[in-house]
Amino acid sequence: MIIESQIKVFSGSTGKEFSERVCKDLNLELGKSRTIRFPEGNIYVKADENVRGKDIFLIQSIGLNPNDEFTEILFWIDAFKRASAKSVTLVMPYFSYAKGDKKDEPRVSIRGRVCAECIELAGIDRVVTMDLHSPQIQGFFKKPVDNLSAMPILCEYIKSLRIEDVIVVSPDSGHAKEARRFARYLSVPVAIGDKERSGYEADASIVEIVGNVEGKNAVIVDDFSITGGTLFNISKELKKRGAKKIIACLSHILLNDKGIDRLMDSDIELLISTDTVNNPYVHECEKIKILSVAPFFAETIRRIHKGESVSSLFQEVPIHVLEIED
Amino acid sequence: MIIESQIKVFSGSTGKEFSERVCKDLNLELGKSRTIRFPEGNIYVKADENVRGKDIFLIQSIGLNPNDEFTEILFWIDAFKRASAKSVTLVMPYFSYAKGDKKDEPRVSIRGRVCAECIELAGIDRVVTMDLHSPQIQGFFKKPVDNLSAMPILCEYIKSLRIEDVIVVSPDSGHAKEARRFARYLSVPVAIGDKERSGYEADASIVEIVGNVEGKNAVIVDDFSITGGTLFNISKELKKRGAKKIIACLSHILLNDKGIDRLMDSDIELLISTDTVNNPYVHECEKIKILSVAPFFAETIRRIHKGESVSSLFQEVPIHVLEIED
Amino acid sequence: MIIESQIKVFSGSTGKEFSERVCKDLNLELGKSRTIRFPEGNIYVKADENVRGKDIFLIQSIGLNPNDEFTEILFWIDAFKRASAKSVTLVMPYFSYAKGDKKDEPRVSIRGRVCAECIELAGIDRVVTMDLHSPQIQGFFKKPVDNLSAMPILCEYIKSLRIEDVIVVSPDSGHAKEARRFARYLSVPVAIGDKERSGYEADASIVEIVGNVEGKNAVIVDDFSITGGTLFNISKELKKRGAKKIIACLSHILLNDKGIDRLMDSDIELLISTDTVNNPYVHECEKIKILSVAPFFAETIRRIHKGESVSSLFQEVPIHVLEIED
Amino acid sequence: MIIESQIKVFSGSTGKEFSERVCKDLNLELGKSRTIRFPEGNIYVKADENVRGKDIFLIQSIGLNPNDEFTEILFWIDAFKRASAKSVTLVMPYFSYAKGDKKDEPRVSIRGRVCAECIELAGIDRVVTMDLHSPQIQGFFKKPVDNLSAMPILCEYIKSLRIEDVIVVSPDSGHAKEARRFARYLSVPVAIGDKERSGYEADASIVEIVGNVEGKNAVIVDDFSITGGTLFNISKELKKRGAKKIIACLSHILLNDKGIDRLMDSDIELLISTDTVNNPYVHECEKIKILSVAPFFAETIRRIHKGESVSSLFQEVPIHVLEIED
Amino acid sequence: MIIESQIKVFSGSTGKEFSERVCKDLNLELGKSRTIRFPEGNIYVKADENVRGKDIFLIQSIGLNPNDEFTEILFWIDAFKRASAKSVTLVMPYFSYAKGDKKDEPRVSIRGRVCAECIELAGIDRVVTMDLHSPQIQGFFKKPVDNLSAMPILCEYIKSLRIEDVIVVSPDSGHAKEARRFARYLSVPVAIGDKERSGYEADASIVEIVGNVEGKNAVIVDDFSITGGTLFNISKELKKRGAKKIIACLSHILLNDKGIDRLMDSDIELLISTDTVNNPYVHECEKIKILSVAPFFAETIRRIHKGESVSSLFQEVPIHVLEIED
Amino acid sequence: MIIESQIKVFSGSTGKEFSERVCKDLNLELGKSRTIRFPEGNIYVKADENVRGKDIFLIQSIGLNPNDEFTEILFWIDAFKRASAKSVTLVMPYFSYAKGDKKDEPRVSIRGRVCAECIELAGIDRVVTMDLHSPQIQGFFKKPVDNLSAMPILCEYIKSLRIEDVIVVSPDSGHAKEARRFARYLSVPVAIGDKERSGYEADASIVEIVGNVEGKNAVIVDDFSITGGTLFNISKELKKRGAKKIIACLSHILLNDKGIDRLMDSDIELLISTDTVNNPYVHECEKIKILSVAPFFAETIRRIHKGESVSSLFQEVPIHVLEIED
Repeated sequence: MIIESQIKVFSGSTGKEFSERVCKDLNLELGKSRTIRFPEGNIYVKADENVRGKDIFLIQSIGLNPNDEFTEILFWIDAFKRASAKSVTLVMPYFSYAKGDKKDEPRVSIRGRVCAECIELAGIDRVVTMDLHSPQIQGFFKKPVDNLSAMPILCEYIKSLRIEDVIVVSPDSGHAKEARRFARYLSVPVAIGDKERSGYEADASIVEIVGNVEGKNAVIVDDFSITGGTLFNISKELKKRGAKKIIACLSHILLNDKGIDRLMDSDIELLISTDTVNNPYVHECEKIKILSVAPFFAETIRRIHKGESVSSLFQEVPIHVLEIED
Repeated sequence: MIIESQIKVFSGSTGKEFSERVCKDLNLELGKSRTIRFPEGNIYVKADENVRGKDIFLIQSIGLNPNDEFTEILFWIDAFKRASAKSVTLVMPYFSYAKGDKKDEPRVSIRGRVCAECIELAGIDRVVTMDLHSPQIQGFFKKPVDNLSAMPILCEYIKSLRIEDVIVVSPDSGHAKEARRFARYLSVPVAIGDKERSGYEADASIVEIVGNVEGKNAVIVDDFSITGGTLFNISKELKKRGAKKIIACLSHILLNDKGIDRLMDSDIELLISTDTVNNPYVHECEKIKILSVAPFFAETIRRIHKGESVSSLFQEVPIHVLEIED
Repeated sequence: MIIESQIKVFSGSTGKEFSERVCKDLNLELGKSRTIRFPEGNIYVKADENVRGKDIFLIQSIGLNPNDEFTEILFWIDAFKRASAKSVTLVMPYFSYAKGDKKDEPRVSIRGRVCAECIELAGIDRVVTMDLHSPQIQGFFKKPVDNLSAMPILCEYIKSLRIEDVIVVSPDSGHAKEARRFARYLSVPVAIGDKERSGYEADASIVEIVGNVEGKNAVIVDDFSITGGTLFNISKELKKRGAKKIIACLSHILLNDKGIDRLMDSDIELLISTDTVNNPYVHECEKIKILSVAPFFAETIRRIHKGESVSSLFQEVPIHVLEIED
Repeated sequence: MIIESQIKVFSGSTGKEFSERVCKDLNLELGKSRTIRFPEGNIYVKADENVRGKDIFLIQSIGLNPNDEFTEILFWIDAFKRASAKSVTLVMPYFSYAKGDKKDEPRVSIRGRVCAECIELAGIDRVVTMDLHSPQIQGFFKKPVDNLSAMPILCEYIKSLRIEDVIVVSPDSGHAKEARRFARYLSVPVAIGDKERSGYEADASIVEIVGNVEGKNAVIVDDFSITGGTLFNISKELKKRGAKKIIACLSHILLNDKGIDRLMDSDIELLISTDTVNNPYVHECEKIKILSVAPFFAETIRRIHKGESVSSLFQEVPIHVLEIED
Repeated sequence: MIIESQIKVFSGSTGKEFSERVCKDLNLELGKSRTIRFPEGNIYVKADENVRGKDIFLIQSIGLNPNDEFTEILFWIDAFKRASAKSVTLVMPYFSYAKGDKKDEPRVSIRGRVCAECIELAGIDRVVTMDLHSPQIQGFFKKPVDNLSAMPILCEYIKSLRIEDVIVVSPDSGHAKEARRFARYLSVPVAIGDKERSGYEADASIVEIVGNVEGKNAVIVDDFSITGGTLFNISKELKKRGAKKIIACLSHILLNDKGIDRLMDSDIELLISTDTVNNPYVHECEKIKILSVAPFFAETIRRIHKGESVSSLFQEVPIHVLEIED
Repeated sequence: MIIESQIKVFSGSTGKEFSERVCKDLNLELGKSRTIRFPEGNIYVKADENVRGKDIFLIQSIGLNPNDEFTEILFWIDAFKRASAKSVTLVMPYFSYAKGDKKDEPRVSIRGRVCAECIELAGIDRVVTMDLHSPQIQGFFKKPVDNLSAMPILCEYIKSLRIEDVIVVSPDSGHAKEARRFARYLSVPVAIGDKERSGYEADASIVEIVGNVEGKNAVIVDDFSITGGTLFNISKELKKRGAKKIIACLSHILLNDKGIDRLMDSDIELLISTDTVNNPYVHECEKIKILSVAPFFAETIRRIHKGESVSSLFQEVPIHVLEIED
């Protein structure tokens, strides 16, 4: 289906496992390449296969080491372009700096735009990503962006659990719109938390939950969590207000060791997420269930290659709930 | 305070009245200029005063005739730049196409980015605007954007009404975050509506209100309303759920004749808004109260001119509630 | 001849009829699309067919609603590019702002360049147009411009009228060069008017005609006329100097209602023009004869698609004089 | 009047004499600099005075050695910018490649745009020039262009000759509009020649003169002449049609040795031009009168420096007819 | 001397000590600012003082954490520009990725150009740096680059040691030209090593020394050393060939722990370097002597501010050999 | 092998012979085109064959008339792009202004970067060149550059001469690294000269030769020589130090008449170079041997066309030592 002489998939240095999953689904060999880190900290990238005249797909998230991953992406793109690649598509399952999408204080940077512009300057022709922190990020790019959604796969998994009396809970008003989309997909009501943050690094405390959660099984949805603070607090409040079972759904799994501890201590029974970020902590934690979105990315690459609509992807393709073998 | 030989304020063809208010506050003459519309529809702009080496402030919203106003802005900027202006600041109290901030459907344009880019290409050095539809729009520009907020002036006016038992109501989850800011400013709770839209032009119907509004005086906050549909529907639902007095607060007043009719028919007692858009319908309607934000824009221009912080504007400057003489 | 899977023709919201004529000639379906105008004046464009990897031809003049049409073109281009079109060719039979091609006064904009730059920024790969107001406009674009000429079709129609003793008349010295081209094509002499304009909106008055027109059948040639003032005046002068039959030839038909009235009152017996602009007034007027240039545009699209020379178009293709069915 | 610590005038390698005239008028020292031509043909430019933070005016025409002069200009601009000049204004009295302003044949370059873009890329902030081949060239630049006119000084000189019964003659229809401006300034009629060119290098032959020149003193106006062919031919035709005295007026004097010979052989009694181009042949020829435009350029630099209007230059400043000492 | 209201110096998160030294010399307060690293790895920068209308100098090397430092620089520049700084000068004493200045293998990136372009895109107006890996790097930037030289200060220190029979040694042919400059400054001869590298990470082995070093005191000069391998090997070879005292001179001190160990084990008696990189290892090692170049950077900032020549810096300013207090 | 309908090779006005050699090797007709030089010095380029949709290869060095050749290249690229070529590859065997690769003095231009940027602005998609003056020049371009090496062909020719006891000599430290590459290819030692230049135009005098050349056959390698001064001087020094046979190897042959004379007077027995520059003097001189690199460029074009690796060119293709028929 894919014409191998026209296409080549490469992986950045983090997330080789995800790239292998995508390539396996595409029935393609992952391109040979090297990322070297010199003793003084510089990185150096080199593709070990001819790319002249080919459509290159570079798979690399900007995830848990965002500065290294961002810089590496720039070098890869430049290397492919200078080697006369026909086109370079950046497949970036998670884009961490998308969080920096506005000037919420004076004299700060809009980091998502800075990264987007540099990536475009380096020479990409297209971006494929998933669940950007806000949909406006697409407008930080001038090149086409295919922003996939993890919602169907997450929702289908929840459906497969056959839980009754579900209510979708957004931890704050900022994520309320996205929570509405989950609730509609699952045909259930929605509740919205109200959190307050006292400083840059402090955890937000939940001051209110708008909507009645009593006797409901709550599905908290958010795009990511790092230290687990919000999840911990909202689940405590949900319990206090009479919620029964509590499940959390995250598009991207960034939990660090502290976050894992908090999750274990919390009233959350199950956390469902995806493999967009290569997080070493998730394997240690039985409360976490990772669903692979690699087949979605593979199908997207296939459609880009064949000039088919990507927007129709979720309507047409049967959704298989996939699980990573531990 | 302002060195007149260094600065010149011009107005586009719509909103001369707003520009005059700003200039009066600055104690400056509005620059002489002409916008001619030829019989075939083309527009032609001409500044009738020397601009060489001066800092130009062009005041023009992209409001009720967005395509004409957008195109005129481009021509103005080009005219000033080709006439060797030192800098051009676009003072755009309302930016209508900011609503087009994402690709919510396949094969559509991100219109806010398109307009932002063209405006920058034409040659601006800075933008001053108010209550952008989403804060991410700032990131569609590469040049500095001072995004003022109408919230303090709107809230101070509400406070001056001395109403008790207020609850701030966001008509939908998309505006929930902003409604929270109003609620915090007023130290009152918040409720969030849930609306559903069945097509491009159809009014959204309110399906739910999350939060208890019974016996409360509701202040609906939104950035704009055109046909008044959402305002009408949410106020009906609020009444149904036992709300008492209903007030609406809009940053930008875009109501057309149909919207005015709906407003008159609705349970809303008072609608408070600003003069960022030159709307001919507002003078006919006794339910509408317009507060002038021209002094805010004037103070911002003054601070830009003097190299003072604009972000500290709301902390330092006493807020006067201003009313347009009818 | 055209490989349908590679090419897709869309029309902007004005001039669908012209686009249909082009598509009929190409034996292609016009692409499904929508342009929605919201109640507050914003426009919104959406392509309803997949464009990924295809060569898109967007047909839209900047004609009688130049600001709407210009803005709509920008949004269309952005929409196609963000939807991963392979290339976008703007087919713009008439480009109204090309008239703004110089700084004839201090502190004005060169509007043709502003529009050209924004159109390129939005992402076009090529422009196809007809009889630009001045040939230098091509240099305002960096992308390739195919500037077709209506002259052959207009001249062939005049030839078909079998009039003797023809003299080509340019209404002013600015159009003298183009009039010479018509005169050469028809192998007849040329006369040149000399007009004077006293203000922006005033009609120009003809003060002199250089060249002897006595006893001749005059063919006035110009690129466009709006209010018919120049046509009216020059034809009066021609009659005064002894001209017999008077015919006018315009590349683009912009006459408004006042212009139609003037034409009816004038000594002009026949006005020949093309369908590059969708002008609702022309159907009411029996003095006007519209020749369709849609087949020329269709043939140009065909040649672009096949990588054939467009410059050789007029030498190789037999010219059929086409008439729009009223 | 000029603050010397803020401004610095440099000259390219050709036309140092013109630059000295400008500096003398400005009462400024010409900046020390070197242009070295290495034996293999490369040129190397070096400013020998500090330019950091200064407004630089670089005086150099693209004249009789256009490729060398164009390349040298690029290197100068880059050198000034890399040395942290505050701004660089290119004072280019003649811009030879402006002649390449359209695609008059398939598969040729629009050379004026290419040069304009490269000059802007190199880093200029403004251009001052004179009598561009067509006014649209201004639109090839994005930066401000002050396009001075030699017409007043040429016309004033003609007036000072106190000739009666003058008619202005344009050698062809392309220059007809400009000839009209001369005729209006002198309050005399106009005639227009009609020439035909059979190949790239062949002289054009005059086939017709539209307008009655019998018994008149003809003033032929053109922007330049190289081989004198057109001047020779039109003056012969003018004589044949009964013209009396014949004078020629050229904005830029490019005549080569063959052109000088033709001029001497022709019926032209006097040729008036300016010193925008450093032409070594003009000193040998008693029929040629050169008027210096250096004071106009000096006044323009003075106004740019002081932020005064340049467009008002000709209304306000008394015109002195200046002659170069031979 | 410096007008404080016009200028503001900020420091990135690494090398605050160096920035303090510069500010002390300038008699200016270092600007208040914060760099926050969030738990998931993202960094966030914020200036805590008004920068509107000011000339900003940001001091930050791309040194031992190059990806973090590079990314942080981009965010700082964006933050300053969006906060309406008048200009941003990047003072980058060391630019680690300058080493990536060519495509020495197929399919690699020219990393120095990538970083330079992104830094310019983010919005800098000027760069001040020291001893770029190759002088061509200046050409990777389009904005002005002041590339200071550590040579005078290093050479003056060597002179102050009053050693006789010195020979300057370049470890390889790539640095031969620079070694020649040292040798000329010191009026001594030069010798050149010849090294061979077998892989990316392997140390180079010295295979030859061209030039006679017997009985000489050798001063090895290089721009940097990381693991000390080359220094160790060349000093061994020098000893073998009869050299007496061995001193090493490095522009930038990147030695890691392994490098320090090698230095201690080697025949090198003294290593002289500068404080362009904040290297925690240098304080532990008595063989290393760090000379501060902060006063040079301070003087450069002073001259930029006053519009004085920077190139004349070393001729005019007396060179004080400075030492960091341990 | 090459699909003729997709590719077209054109030649600039200098070096048609080289282009013919390339085309012969490719079995393609050289594209029909004209470069006209008008009497006033302007050049005008025109392609006489359709280029629409084709991959264009333009062959032209920037050699002995660098300003003319550079300007002509810009016009060619623009002409091809405006004529809708699919891509334009500039095949520039010699790039003279690459010598201007750094700011070695204050207030000079980095001419290589200026030329590279203008060439990219004009619209190229790729550059193929040979032995750039420094490898960093590749980084002055953003588009892919294939920088071929003449070393293998030059070395193979030297091998074919079967000389013993060879030593490779670099005339100065700046070329030492490249000389090492030759020495490694030939498995022989290296010596390095040390030259001093007293002014811009003066010849450098050799002050030292590092390394023992006694009794050796010296092969001087350099990238070019113009006046032969360095070659003359180093060969004299080599003889003085006991060298036997002396051969010189230059990548590009720029020797002018003076250079030829010096060569004839020198101790150099044979000078080997390539045909990258069309030098009229070389045919007169029996000491010079020109090897054609046209087949290398042809093979490179073939590989670009087929999407094969160019970097592997020298490993895979058997090297034929080619000689130009005199």
